[in-house]
Amino acid sequence: MSDVKKVVLAYSGGLDTSVILKWLQDNYQCEIVTFTADLGQGEELEPARQKALKFGIKPENIFIDDLKEEFVRDFVFPMFRANTIYEGEYLLGTSIARPLIAKRQIEIANQTQADAVSHGATGKGNDQVRFELGYYALRPDIKVIAPWREWDLLSREKLLAYAEAAGISIDMKHRNGGAPYSMDANLLHISYEGRHLESPKAEAEESMWRWTVRPEDAPDAPEYLDLEFDKGDIVAINGARMTPAQVLTHLNEVGGKHGVGRLDLVENRYVGMKSRGCYETPGGTIILKAHRAIESITLDREVAHLKDDLMPRYASLIYNGYWWAPEREALQVLINHTQAGVNGWVRVKLYKGSVTVVARDSKNTLFDEQIATFDDDGGAYNQADAAGFIKLNALRLRIAKNAANKRGG
Amino acid sequence: MSDVKKVVLAYSGGLDTSVILKWLQDNYQCEIVTFTADLGQGEELEPARQKALKFGIKPENIFIDDLKEEFVRDFVFPMFRANTIYEGEYLLGTSIARPLIAKRQIEIANQTQADAVSHGATGKGNDQVRFELGYYALRPDIKVIAPWREWDLLSREKLLAYAEAAGISIDMKHRNGGAPYSMDANLLHISYEGRHLESPKAEAEESMWRWTVRPEDAPDAPEYLDLEFDKGDIVAINGARMTPAQVLTHLNEVGGKHGVGRLDLVENRYVGMKSRGCYETPGGTIILKAHRAIESITLDREVAHLKDDLMPRYASLIYNGYWWAPEREALQVLINHTQAGVNGWVRVKLYKGSVTVVARDSKNTLFDEQIATFDDDGGAYNQADAAGFIKLNALRLRIAKNAANKRGG
Amino acid sequence: MSDVKKVVLAYSGGLDTSVILKWLQDNYQCEIVTFTADLGQGEELEPARQKALKFGIKPENIFIDDLKEEFVRDFVFPMFRANTIYEGEYLLGTSIARPLIAKRQIEIANQTQADAVSHGATGKGNDQVRFELGYYALRPDIKVIAPWREWDLLSREKLLAYAEAAGISIDMKHRNGGAPYSMDANLLHISYEGRHLESPKAEAEESMWRWTVRPEDAPDAPEYLDLEFDKGDIVAINGARMTPAQVLTHLNEVGGKHGVGRLDLVENRYVGMKSRGCYETPGGTIILKAHRAIESITLDREVAHLKDDLMPRYASLIYNGYWWAPEREALQVLINHTQAGVNGWVRVKLYKGSVTVVARDSKNTLFDEQIATFDDDGGAYNQADAAGFIKLNALRLRIAKNAANKRGG
Amino acid sequence: MSDVKKVVLAYSGGLDTSVILKWLQDNYQCEIVTFTADLGQGEELEPARQKALKFGIKPENIFIDDLKEEFVRDFVFPMFRANTIYEGEYLLGTSIARPLIAKRQIEIANQTQADAVSHGATGKGNDQVRFELGYYALRPDIKVIAPWREWDLLSREKLLAYAEAAGISIDMKHRNGGAPYSMDANLLHISYEGRHLESPKAEAEESMWRWTVRPEDAPDAPEYLDLEFDKGDIVAINGARMTPAQVLTHLNEVGGKHGVGRLDLVENRYVGMKSRGCYETPGGTIILKAHRAIESITLDREVAHLKDDLMPRYASLIYNGYWWAPEREALQVLINHTQAGVNGWVRVKLYKGSVTVVARDSKNTLFDEQIATFDDDGGAYNQADAAGFIKLNALRLRIAKNAANKRGG
Repeated sequence: MSDVKKVVLAYSGGLDTSVILKWLQDNYQCEIVTFTADLGQGEELEPARQKALKFGIKPENIFIDDLKEEFVRDFVFPMFRANTIYEGEYLLGTSIARPLIAKRQIEIANQTQADAVSHGATGKGNDQVRFELGYYALRPDIKVIAPWREWDLLSREKLLAYAEAAGISIDMKHRNGGAPYSMDANLLHISYEGRHLESPKAEAEESMWRWTVRPEDAPDAPEYLDLEFDKGDIVAINGARMTPAQVLTHLNEVGGKHGVGRLDLVENRYVGMKSRGCYETPGGTIILKAHRAIESITLDREVAHLKDDLMPRYASLIYNGYWWAPEREALQVLINHTQAGVNGWVRVKLYKGSVTVVARDSKNTLFDEQIATFDDDGGAYNQADAAGFIKLNALRLRIAKNAANKRGG
Repeated sequence: MSDVKKVVLAYSGGLDTSVILKWLQDNYQCEIVTFTADLGQGEELEPARQKALKFGIKPENIFIDDLKEEFVRDFVFPMFRANTIYEGEYLLGTSIARPLIAKRQIEIANQTQADAVSHGATGKGNDQVRFELGYYALRPDIKVIAPWREWDLLSREKLLAYAEAAGISIDMKHRNGGAPYSMDANLLHISYEGRHLESPKAEAEESMWRWTVRPEDAPDAPEYLDLEFDKGDIVAINGARMTPAQVLTHLNEVGGKHGVGRLDLVENRYVGMKSRGCYETPGGTIILKAHRAIESITLDREVAHLKDDLMPRYASLIYNGYWWAPEREALQVLINHTQAGVNGWVRVKLYKGSVTVVARDSKNTLFDEQIATFDDDGGAYNQADAAGFIKLNALRLRIAKNAANKRGG
Repeated sequence: MSDVKKVVLAYSGGLDTSVILKWLQDNYQCEIVTFTADLGQGEELEPARQKALKFGIKPENIFIDDLKEEFVRDFVFPMFRANTIYEGEYLLGTSIARPLIAKRQIEIANQTQADAVSHGATGKGNDQVRFELGYYALRPDIKVIAPWREWDLLSREKLLAYAEAAGISIDMKHRNGGAPYSMDANLLHISYEGRHLESPKAEAEESMWRWTVRPEDAPDAPEYLDLEFDKGDIVAINGARMTPAQVLTHLNEVGGKHGVGRLDLVENRYVGMKSRGCYETPGGTIILKAHRAIESITLDREVAHLKDDLMPRYASLIYNGYWWAPEREALQVLINHTQAGVNGWVRVKLYKGSVTVVARDSKNTLFDEQIATFDDDGGAYNQADAAGFIKLNALRLRIAKNAANKRGG
Repeated sequence: MSDVKKVVLAYSGGLDTSVILKWLQDNYQCEIVTFTADLGQGEELEPARQKALKFGIKPENIFIDDLKEEFVRDFVFPMFRANTIYEGEYLLGTSIARPLIAKRQIEIANQTQADAVSHGATGKGNDQVRFELGYYALRPDIKVIAPWREWDLLSREKLLAYAEAAGISIDMKHRNGGAPYSMDANLLHISYEGRHLESPKAEAEESMWRWTVRPEDAPDAPEYLDLEFDKGDIVAINGARMTPAQVLTHLNEVGGKHGVGRLDLVENRYVGMKSRGCYETPGGTIILKAHRAIESITLDREVAHLKDDLMPRYASLIYNGYWWAPEREALQVLINHTQAGVNGWVRVKLYKGSVTVVARDSKNTLFDEQIATFDDDGGAYNQADAAGFIKLNALRLRIAKNAANKRGG
């Protein structure tokens, strides 16, 4: 084991990170600082403090932070400005939370003069990469302890045995019924992996889902929402102004009620394997749809297409953990620049699992009714111009076909 | 008017192209060949023959072709191999039909020794471009007559007056209630533009939609479909092998019954304006979802990402009318190459307007359960490898931060 | 002819734009404002004033502006920050000047309350597009008069006859020896088209080139230059600080002396045809090489690659005339953002037509000698990390091959 | 040390791989197969056989293969079809040889029933990645021994001491004057790294360069070459048909004589650090220039631009070692498809270090002199078409500016 003096652990208070806390004490004999973040995962955090104290962590070494507003304002919203989706489906709910945790963890390390950080992500997943790329980018000399890559507690049984021996209380759900889903939750989503999801041909059990009702059980009447945008971000719902975290909280509630935002997919991890995941992202699903709609009337065509061309790359950067890399920042500068005029409102309809856009408007609209009309436009657009437009766009095709014809092609 | 001897007109038998037929006779004094294609728009075509005969078209100059299988096999399916969507929403139902019509029209022109072709698309839209780029690419010396860009019948009233004077029968729907929606239908979709859709903030009337039921009126029980893929195309549904056109017909029926595939959007036309359109694409919506799912287990990650990066460009090419251009063909060669192993089945659930993937499998699967498992994998994957992977990926970030720190940054 | 009251003509004082001036007077009977810009083309501009006066242009309607500093500072340098080359070869010397001319012409139109602008570019080339896209973007209601697309003076003979009849003095070079090269010059380059260059298989005559000596005639001793960069732009040469226009002027002189910057190519015009052009860009050729070199030590790898991926698109935008379009501006925001740390110096060697980089350094360097060394680095880099890096990057390839082997592939 | 029975070593016969051979014998006690490839590096290979025998390698375990034709035909030429350059400068001479060595090494491993392979690349460079990604892609269960990542001979002194103790003969050049350049040579290039190149601000010593004369010492008369292309590859020089390896050999000779192809740059390695390298690529430099020129008259504009957009990605794939990855193959399918009509000849001029294109022609030319002419073209092109072309391309810009004006923007 390397020479570590003080380590900041990303500590949820749950079973796994409690085992890690104990294991660090046993194996590194170093001072431990616990960091617990409220990202809207929907769990009380005070129990984490009590558990930490029970492990002998000094009160001044226990950090519990409410990061919900920062999370949505500085991470979730900037990401949605790009209409970001990974591999056509995934809304990056876990990926986008990791850089904030890494940033705060390094801040605490600097503040407490710690020389190491630790996290509970396994050696097979993307989260280890996302955490550690963040750590290294923000503090290049930091030592990283990733217990899952070091220890020998690789089966569920060994982990529980270690916990038991250490006097860590184990919930009933952990004792019975085999391994639980591997879950991650924050204000943007909740995710499920593992168990029988490991077979991509098995349908997910209805009992697994937590945030959204089964569409069949959603209300029989659709619900409409008016979403107001300012610079690409939602700032009001049905006329009520809200903070970023309030916006997402509200959309999660309404979306979840209508069964919006379930996803079941196989994704490609950065570490090289394919992985089955199920996700509930009710609010995010609504934001994505609505943001595209407000852009559809306020963004120039070629700017929109440029964004579309760059989006998969931007999504991969976030998925792979490069939030703090200069290429992500360069893309963000471009994306933010394009949102200056993305203002207006969008009306969406939620019903039995689907969200549809039905209307949109903006003071900045580039939709010109006079030109777009099928009626006589009074000369606003000269239809004869199209002939020249087509002729010149066709020229290279005609020259090529002529040349081929001459060659007998 | 230019010196035209024989013109092949894309003739639907409807009011607009009947007026064009008459107008061509009046203004060009040339022989006319009518071409009517069955692309699955769901209208009988024999009336078109009767109308053409009534206009004095010679029987040998009347062409009525069933192109449904060719349409799906050679145009729709190749396009879906790329997961093609324009501007994040539009499934290109109209765009993908135009190149086939252009191709067949030029074939007929060559066969009948015509020197010109004509179509009924307006001078404001994309379809004129799609038709004419096709014409010119396939026969560079062809003369093109686009009556909407030449004549003075630019208002609905003038058009009806001309029709009346010419003895063209006018349906009641045209006489009453103002201008109809501008619609286009084929086996992939039906589209609506114009009328009160010209205001993007007005919700579409329920009475407009024709192919899909209102989700509220869809069956209360979900329906599952098993879709079998071969080389990226669906070849069987629920175990029954089908031709391409049969596949799409069937998916349209089932999808329409469940309210799947409605879309309401503002798109950017190639001619430079924004335009509001509503679309029903029940079968296409299902294909897109299912195709992504079968690719998710059979395509290599980087190949999938390459396709995602190229997709918006490929979509724009089709939207803008460049199907017959060499750059579209070059992209298609790449896309088709990637589909060699895209085989297997996908299970989708249709319910009240939404389509969700719930399971998928393939003999070619790249999903490796042994490696992906959260359980002990018996050494198939060495978690310690991840440390080096992260360290080297972080190296440039660490060097940069170190350099900045040295400069006092 | 449309109803034009006052037109601002981009007037060089040469034969072609003098004929245009007269033709506008004859055909539009409108007030004419002449605008002559000094972009470093190396011709005296006062004769243009005298000629304009002779045509009866009012003194207050004659604008002669020195735009050299603005040209290099706001157009040439920003373009080089992207390492911009069109189609792998062309440095965009003509393309980058057009947006500035268009901008100034519209400013003068606004100032003089003119309702129209006019230019001397032909209907076959790119320049008409570049001018007019600029005009329309900056003043959407402007009327544009492009005489070459309107008149019937399409042969050299007719043009000369018109000039003669109008009493326009014709140089000997125009009277004899057939059509001259079509040339364009500014501080960035001089270009040649036409005459026997119209055959791509004919080598250019040595007598054509004007700015650079034949490499064979260049000095027998190489010359070294030290170029200092600040935020991606050259600010000093051999220790002497210079303004942007001074930098480019100096590099043109030294480069030209050493035969640097000749180019002979066939390019693809935006209007659809291929065109042969010869170019001399001595200073620009040096800037491009040196800028890449300073970026090589100051830019992060992925930022550099992002720029490389976007460069061809950015180059096409400039080539096609979209400088004033929002997508060019969005890209520029990204490009400029990346240049914040592009500081330092580069040493280049000029010799007989070639320019080579031989050394470079920067306070912002990301080159870490301790890590890069082939000697023992004292543990700065752990070679064992590479094993994990490779293993995980290879994982998807191994899984795919294993799967293929199992299928007997 | 893992349990290895038989290992195939990429063996050059030089000092480093001889030490590796001995080290493998000492540390792995396994049977060793040596593989020595002639890729045109210009060294005799029979001495490698004698050395291997001296180490006790069985004659049937010594493989010496002439791979020159395969190298150029299946690796170098396909790469140049894409106009491939890494980071704007580097012609990938080392990168493109590694996949062939890896492939042949695995073939020999399969043939000799070996269970491991070994190479002499260090843990800091790209070559280890290129070798090993190839190994794993072609045989996923292969064991890889990378001595530089395992042993403790990390300084030059330790390596020489080990060699001495093992009775390996050491050249004078190695004994004196400190570490030599780290060099790599094949038919495409020779590269130099290390020594005082480790300081990017130090100019390379003239004595370092081996393949090209100093431009100052090149002939005072230029030399012209006529290069004939078929499907994108050079098949004849000055009328003499040649095999791929003959083409490259000849171009290296002529290019080297004229001082063509020296390069001095800082590049970004895949493992995360920047590295200074000097390269001589005389033949490749000529091919790149000439290939762009033949494409300039035979490729469609949009196909050429598509290739330009994809090139940096394709170059990175090769640089990073992904030749055998499916995404490289997919890109290659597209690239090869575009070369079907890339036939014709190009004339280049070599002089004092530079190569310039002066003429080009093709039966497949898309250059249409009739349309491109500055003279009257007899109506082949209607200049008036350009007005409509510009108008519609400007439409979105005009609408946006109008909207901004209305808002008072």
